[in-house]
Amino acid sequence: MVVKGMPNLIECVPNISEGRRPEIVEAAVAALRSTPGVKVLDVQSDRDHNRSVLTLVGDDASLKPAILALFEAVLPKIDLRTHTGEHPRLGAVDVVPFIPIEGVTVAECVALAKSVGSAVAERFVLPVFLYEDAASAPHRRNLEDIRRGQFEGLEAKMKEALWAPDFGPRAPHPSAGASVIGARMPLIAFNINLGTSDLEVAKRIAKAIRNSSGGYRFVKALGLLLEGRGVAQVSINMTDFKKTPLHRVFETVRAEAERSGVAVVGSEIVGLVPEEALIDAADHFLRLEAFRPNQVLERRIREAESGSVKP
Amino acid sequence: MVVKGMPNLIECVPNISEGRRPEIVEAAVAALRSTPGVKVLDVQSDRDHNRSVLTLVGDDASLKPAILALFEAVLPKIDLRTHTGEHPRLGAVDVVPFIPIEGVTVAECVALAKSVGSAVAERFVLPVFLYEDAASAPHRRNLEDIRRGQFEGLEAKMKEALWAPDFGPRAPHPSAGASVIGARMPLIAFNINLGTSDLEVAKRIAKAIRNSSGGYRFVKALGLLLEGRGVAQVSINMTDFKKTPLHRVFETVRAEAERSGVAVVGSEIVGLVPEEALIDAADHFLRLEAFRPNQVLERRIREAESGSVKP
Repeated sequence: MVVKGMPNLIECVPNISEGRRPEIVEAAVAALRSTPGVKVLDVQSDRDHNRSVLTLVGDDASLKPAILALFEAVLPKIDLRTHTGEHPRLGAVDVVPFIPIEGVTVAECVALAKSVGSAVAERFVLPVFLYEDAASAPHRRNLEDIRRGQFEGLEAKMKEALWAPDFGPRAPHPSAGASVIGARMPLIAFNINLGTSDLEVAKRIAKAIRNSSGGYRFVKALGLLLEGRGVAQVSINMTDFKKTPLHRVFETVRAEAERSGVAVVGSEIVGLVPEEALIDAADHFLRLEAFRPNQVLERRIREAESGSVKP
Repeated sequence: MVVKGMPNLIECVPNISEGRRPEIVEAAVAALRSTPGVKVLDVQSDRDHNRSVLTLVGDDASLKPAILALFEAVLPKIDLRTHTGEHPRLGAVDVVPFIPIEGVTVAECVALAKSVGSAVAERFVLPVFLYEDAASAPHRRNLEDIRRGQFEGLEAKMKEALWAPDFGPRAPHPSAGASVIGARMPLIAFNINLGTSDLEVAKRIAKAIRNSSGGYRFVKALGLLLEGRGVAQVSINMTDFKKTPLHRVFETVRAEAERSGVAVVGSEIVGLVPEEALIDAADHFLRLEAFRPNQVLERRIREAESGSVKP
């Protein structure tokens, strides 16, 4: 449960089907920024995909009006009937994931996704599918499965019993299609570099650690070769760092590599990582006893800002 | 140099010579809070010491007016001529250290300490001594040396050539004595527990790692026995975690313990720790390559708040 007065921090990464007209992307960002408590961290537009990825953070109270304002701003301006681009898409506001960062659980983000999905469907008469941890059935968890057939195939697909929307009408919005809204844990892109150019070693280790072949529950991995460096790499997506932590995967890769007489020469985190994932790693390797997150000075400051510390 | 628009975060821990009259401590806190940009994180009052320790954070622009407001609020209300308490003290506002946390160097905190010290001396006609990294001579670095003789011995001490103040008159303020203002790196209290009850092992390791007997430059350490648990402990103060990092001290303690056939069973951090110290440890143990601090999501948010990210 979100505790009133405690800081809660949720990331939201709406993908909109517009990457060529800057004035529409700017209108989307302005709509998000118009809601107090929301911060836009990043905007990436891709002309070939004709798509933009907006990264924002806020709390459980501010994100709902922000996302409604986003729909309000872009729905009149994006028409899927004339939209072209390389990236698969189902709607004008294509995907909206909510991601728990701090002081909030994934279950609370699921509740937020449902609340936003319901409001969007009602206000804009638009079908909404819930996905990932918010999915209403196992076959609707994966975005790729929901999006298969794209906007052009949506009308026929929605007539199937399996593909009724979670909210809104049983047919696509004429110009805006449908939206996929959900919740998931933050994804960490974590690559581990091996002291060998033997791709087979990296492939064997990837197989050992990934869920699909018997490894850790929240690990996706594959082996690849960094051609320029002549380094074999285990390329990993960590899909729940709380349940499958970085340090455990790192130690397992190290032990498996050693079995092949190979050293771990380095690792890299691509993109952003929640502070907690790194603090958990420090906690593990330093063998800390009874360490509390609010011993981190910066976190104590955030608590003071949100009014939960009253000296 | 502090970059305009980049976040800079400085901790300040004024110690005032009042721990018995809550209304005066509250007036001190209210004075600090009255300055925009300053957050009071913690207030600890001790009746026996008759002293309160206030912990606040702010940036280079907000802390100077906040500290001046603190002096303004408490100087008329604390009279050292009638003050009693177990803790040594020289003045009404006894000690004011500035501590760099993020986006700011200790040199910038030294400049802030001098600016605040000069302003305090002028406005309140009060002698100010600079200490730690702001000290004007080696014999004035340590607070204990400056404070030796206390308020009662101050008038005689200040007549010595070695103890002229850095700012203000060459004699104590009648009721408020003198203030000691300076800058230092954050201190981390880091204890490492050994799988033995043999105090001699902990003492030997403490001697191996501490600066005073040939160890790391920014480590103070001693060996002690946790009576209740029957565990020998290396009790460490890390006085500059950037130059002597946690992981290096941890690994050295582990290697030295192994030499005695003893394992490291755990460690603890007492009190607060800057985020960066833990992220550095994760970076080391995970062998991260080219990790940038602003890959930490929470830090990216702070940058967005301070306007240094313009998507």
